[in-house]
Amino acid sequence: MVNQWLNVRSLISEEDLYQIYKYENINEYLKFHPVNVVEHARSIEKWIDIPTPVLESYKMIGRQTPLVRAYRLEKQLQTNNKIYLKREDLLSNGSFKITSALPQAYYGALEGKKSVFTETGAGQTGVAAALAARLNGLDCKVFMVRTSYELKKLRRLMMEMYGAEVLASPSKDTKAGRALLSNGESNGSIALATSEVMECISENSDSFNIAGSLLDFVLTYNSIVGLETIKQLDEEGVQPDIIVGCVGGGSSFGGFALPLIDRYKGQLTQVICTESSSIPTLTKGTYCYDHPDGEGLGNKLLMYSLGYDFKPPAMHASGLRYHAASPIVSYFVNKGFIEAKAYEEKEAMLSAIDFSRAEGVIASPESSYTIHAIKEICHEYDNKNIVAVITGNGQLDLESYGVFL
Amino acid sequence: MVNQWLNVRSLISEEDLYQIYKYENINEYLKFHPVNVVEHARSIEKWIDIPTPVLESYKMIGRQTPLVRAYRLEKQLQTNNKIYLKREDLLSNGSFKITSALPQAYYGALEGKKSVFTETGAGQTGVAAALAARLNGLDCKVFMVRTSYELKKLRRLMMEMYGAEVLASPSKDTKAGRALLSNGESNGSIALATSEVMECISENSDSFNIAGSLLDFVLTYNSIVGLETIKQLDEEGVQPDIIVGCVGGGSSFGGFALPLIDRYKGQLTQVICTESSSIPTLTKGTYCYDHPDGEGLGNKLLMYSLGYDFKPPAMHASGLRYHAASPIVSYFVNKGFIEAKAYEEKEAMLSAIDFSRAEGVIASPESSYTIHAIKEICHEYDNKNIVAVITGNGQLDLESYGVFL
Repeated sequence: MVNQWLNVRSLISEEDLYQIYKYENINEYLKFHPVNVVEHARSIEKWIDIPTPVLESYKMIGRQTPLVRAYRLEKQLQTNNKIYLKREDLLSNGSFKITSALPQAYYGALEGKKSVFTETGAGQTGVAAALAARLNGLDCKVFMVRTSYELKKLRRLMMEMYGAEVLASPSKDTKAGRALLSNGESNGSIALATSEVMECISENSDSFNIAGSLLDFVLTYNSIVGLETIKQLDEEGVQPDIIVGCVGGGSSFGGFALPLIDRYKGQLTQVICTESSSIPTLTKGTYCYDHPDGEGLGNKLLMYSLGYDFKPPAMHASGLRYHAASPIVSYFVNKGFIEAKAYEEKEAMLSAIDFSRAEGVIASPESSYTIHAIKEICHEYDNKNIVAVITGNGQLDLESYGVFL
Repeated sequence: MVNQWLNVRSLISEEDLYQIYKYENINEYLKFHPVNVVEHARSIEKWIDIPTPVLESYKMIGRQTPLVRAYRLEKQLQTNNKIYLKREDLLSNGSFKITSALPQAYYGALEGKKSVFTETGAGQTGVAAALAARLNGLDCKVFMVRTSYELKKLRRLMMEMYGAEVLASPSKDTKAGRALLSNGESNGSIALATSEVMECISENSDSFNIAGSLLDFVLTYNSIVGLETIKQLDEEGVQPDIIVGCVGGGSSFGGFALPLIDRYKGQLTQVICTESSSIPTLTKGTYCYDHPDGEGLGNKLLMYSLGYDFKPPAMHASGLRYHAASPIVSYFVNKGFIEAKAYEEKEAMLSAIDFSRAEGVIASPESSYTIHAIKEICHEYDNKNIVAVITGNGQLDLESYGVFL
């Protein structure tokens, strides 16, 4: 079993790190995150030991996840490439998100915190936070963007199954929420849900936030996805040629691809990250200093961005609805180690439907972009070993697929 | 990897088999099922080799499934019993049902059949048939009881994701369906859906039915669940004391428990099958010759039954809505090798909610009865190894859990 995380900051020179983070005030994180987590965010050590209780909780929720050869997809695509899929969809909560939520909850509990506040859009982050909190004996309150609260009832029920209290944001529980509600604005946004969370944490010193993406420590905790993949490839005697995943904030892709880039550097034909052509952060965004939040309040980071005030359109793969991409992933894209590709929603969703008919796996809409990329790669290349990550399962997104059936 | 099925008929003496099946005409099965499948239904050989392509498709959909120690549930229940869970919920389609559907589809395709017709209530059987058909290059048409067709939209979409055509039953496609529709009866029932399927198969010699429960060959194909469990227990050096599962028609329980009963006979403290107190087939039914179908047309079998004309009430665990139990499972209950226990829906569903908070696993409502039994066992016993099967995942049943949250 993999028992260390790979610190993604360690893959970048100190000089470059300074450039990326020169406006960041890492101590700000201490207001909202456990001390150990912030230590990891600022560390440049390459390896971080995973505490035994976290290893046990990883095992409990289904880690290590299988790496499977997709024989039937290969047959469907009539390709002689070999396709390997890292199956994060098989985790109990239904997505990779629990992988970074568990250590955050563990360190919070270790430091005497009693409760978690977290924001969620479509619900995957909230589900992971709810489960991680519960497994570590913490209370959990989730502020869920009201439109999702109403439309994504099953994800809300899943959080409640895990014992979390779920509030529609804007809520009456916070000043920020009440202000909007009194103006007759009730649809909410992830930015507002975040404000509600920050207000609650500021007023409750026993509480903290579980972050779902973007921040380096989230990618570092997710590095176990890539490290397991390396171990599994070694066991099969397989040398990867092409790496594929999707990018919203970049936390699954970073956790999956960066350990592979580190291990196989110079030997990979291509590393591809996919995104939606409606939110083309990495293919059409600018590499610049921008705010990570939607209100322009957070310290600027060097990353690809469509502008902090970009309003992501509604889409089925709601996990890809973010205006920027993780600074670390952005760095590797900028240096040319990772190539970004954008696809239309319809072509991606149709490829995922074909995939379900080949492999029996209902992938999350986010992963449909990865599946579409695999198809494209198979047109372009022969005799390669393609390694891709399926980030989550799409059983609760079947209505989205229904639109394309 | 397990590469043989245990023929469940081989566990019963020829004399007793004769008593159970004296009214059965096994050749009737040839009208609806592949020849190889019927051969297995009539065989009394103990072991049946699993064909290599079936083994490959088992691997593809997630077999072998994990056997996990439920440490957190043990902690929640404050017990010193050890609880082991066989996780059939992790299969791609979401339940054990694919385990018997795959070989049926394989043999049908091998014998030149082109399409599958199948009936489904809440949809688990239909989802498994749709996937098994697709993975074997067969078309699939599912007759889904109209009330479920409307209420269980996500399961219907899942069948469509797998490429099946799903019709609400009664449908306009059959004489039986049209007759009911013209009488203004449109809610449907599993008995009517079965009639529609039989009519279609009679008129289409290239087609066959994938059975979901009750019949011996279904239990035999599911025996891999129990055989994998034995192998996994051996690997961990664990000797089971108490075996638990739920019974609707008895196919998951038979496949899971019978190999364990065979292997550990005389050494088990208790073998428990659970059912709903609203449909108390094994606790309050009569051990008698009765029809397996709801219309009194099928040949009588010796089994526990509430009467073929018993109308199962609506309930969340719709997989348990059946008036009788598999003759083989019934036989072992009657002989005292298996003890049946009935629970109220509410206590079962609440135990499953507690379980999700301990282990992060959303179990199918059917398995909630098993989870409740584990709780009861832990009150009664100490220092035992409890081995239970979680038959499916409940993500598409979250609305059912919502009623109890």
